[in-house]
Amino acid sequence: MAAKSKKNRADGAVIGLIQARAESKPEANLAKMEVMIRRAAGNGAQIICLQELFLTPYFCQAEDYACFQLAEPVPGPTTERLGRLARRLKVVLIAPLFERRARGIYHNTAAVIDADGRYLGKYRKMHIPDDPLFYEKFYFTPGDLGFRVWDTKYGRVGVLICWDQWYPEAARLAAMQGADILFYPTAIGWHPREKAALGRAQLEAWQMTQRAHAIANGCYVAAVNRVGLERSAGGGCLEFWGRSFVADPMGRLVAEAGADCEQVVLAEARFDEIEETRTHWPFFRDRRIDAYGGLKERFYPGG
Amino acid sequence: MAAKSKKNRADGAVIGLIQARAESKPEANLAKMEVMIRRAAGNGAQIICLQELFLTPYFCQAEDYACFQLAEPVPGPTTERLGRLARRLKVVLIAPLFERRARGIYHNTAAVIDADGRYLGKYRKMHIPDDPLFYEKFYFTPGDLGFRVWDTKYGRVGVLICWDQWYPEAARLAAMQGADILFYPTAIGWHPREKAALGRAQLEAWQMTQRAHAIANGCYVAAVNRVGLERSAGGGCLEFWGRSFVADPMGRLVAEAGADCEQVVLAEARFDEIEETRTHWPFFRDRRIDAYGGLKERFYPGG
Repeated sequence: MAAKSKKNRADGAVIGLIQARAESKPEANLAKMEVMIRRAAGNGAQIICLQELFLTPYFCQAEDYACFQLAEPVPGPTTERLGRLARRLKVVLIAPLFERRARGIYHNTAAVIDADGRYLGKYRKMHIPDDPLFYEKFYFTPGDLGFRVWDTKYGRVGVLICWDQWYPEAARLAAMQGADILFYPTAIGWHPREKAALGRAQLEAWQMTQRAHAIANGCYVAAVNRVGLERSAGGGCLEFWGRSFVADPMGRLVAEAGADCEQVVLAEARFDEIEETRTHWPFFRDRRIDAYGGLKERFYPGG
Repeated sequence: MAAKSKKNRADGAVIGLIQARAESKPEANLAKMEVMIRRAAGNGAQIICLQELFLTPYFCQAEDYACFQLAEPVPGPTTERLGRLARRLKVVLIAPLFERRARGIYHNTAAVIDADGRYLGKYRKMHIPDDPLFYEKFYFTPGDLGFRVWDTKYGRVGVLICWDQWYPEAARLAAMQGADILFYPTAIGWHPREKAALGRAQLEAWQMTQRAHAIANGCYVAAVNRVGLERSAGGGCLEFWGRSFVADPMGRLVAEAGADCEQVVLAEARFDEIEETRTHWPFFRDRRIDAYGGLKERFYPGG
């Protein structure tokens, strides 16, 4: 317990986000990530988050039974290999993986590895999308571990995944566990045919929603997204829009990546900013917990 | 019920927001509002929302027992007078008032008046702030009517007030009742001494948070704020930042006022946009209502 309370006295952490283009083979993606993680660590990153399903192209563009072969146990071979790297570099790693849980049960998962290489646990994506070219409900069983945080060497982190971004409930429930930083590994992009009409609004909504989570909860939010045009065998095509970013507890952008380049995003999270912001904007103080019961409903009767 | 379902087939409504500087006397504010309401209606507004506590300067800059004399019953003399105007102009009016409920019990309230002049009901501000120069906890008993919507002639409206803006829970609970538009009458401004360092971030956070409510819930959001420098007898001073706005269900600004001018903001809410947006971004579909129980907690144990 002494060690844990010492950890929590850390006055900040350097976040590293790895924004990359997907290679076709898992080994190539893992090798690329190892290079980029080393670069991030060399530049001072302490908590490094990889993008959603970083080992593969975004295979959910089609419903293909063969893709289940891409899944692996978590913890498993990839977390073991990344654990060794984390220990060597003394960095925390958040590694989003396609988890094989049991025969016929799969999750969209993120593993959390501490800076001594130890596997701390995993988050299983709770909100699963299903839209044209994002056929995730076919692949992923909804998470059953709830919203979670972990005390790492460099701060208490919450991890949520992509579609969770649109749910203030998810951010709140992670922040209420004392997260200093909420990480959102992501795979979001444009349908090329929609981009001219809606592309800007979609990207702005995506960013604004997450910056609003930082504001509502007075904590840091770090989103990491892939880049590149990915074509699926089924004829689908998505242009992933990158723009990985870190927002501070007032929702200000403290770092932001481009839309089409591989990039290591670095940003400092200053934990005194969390206290300062929450003291001046004490939103937690005034939550009407006596009146929030309806949030457990789907929609109001007759509504 | 036939009439109600006919109402709900309306394909849109023109929103009017009245952004104004406060005069010192209630009668002067009411007279000014009547002029501006007529102007808004003359320009096509159908649902018109006034700013928070529109009858007075923002008296909460000081804790002054004498100010309780400013309160009135709701419904009461002001809603009766506005009801006649609403009927004459065939407009829905949302009128935020300082409500005297009983001896020693007061609320920060908004009355909803239909386009036939009928008083439909009231919302009592649920989240009450208390910051230097915003001493609302001294004046206002927290609302006990919950989060509400009303079917008006021109659409189903939810009403929330100012500090409620920072709570995604409030927006969600009103939207879950089928609100087409969430209205936020507001009195927010800068402490002049903070403006240079924090003013821009505060205003952006305020706007972003509410645009995020539009996105998360796929509905329109309309915020109306006062303008002007108000000095209190106690030596306080606030610069209200105006910038009243309407956001569409993708969070795009469809109208926005300046920071220091009296202004009638007009914007069309197109209800087909609500369905279109929610169909493409079906966030309600995937809410994990089985996992949201923690939202009724203050903060997690040990968190």
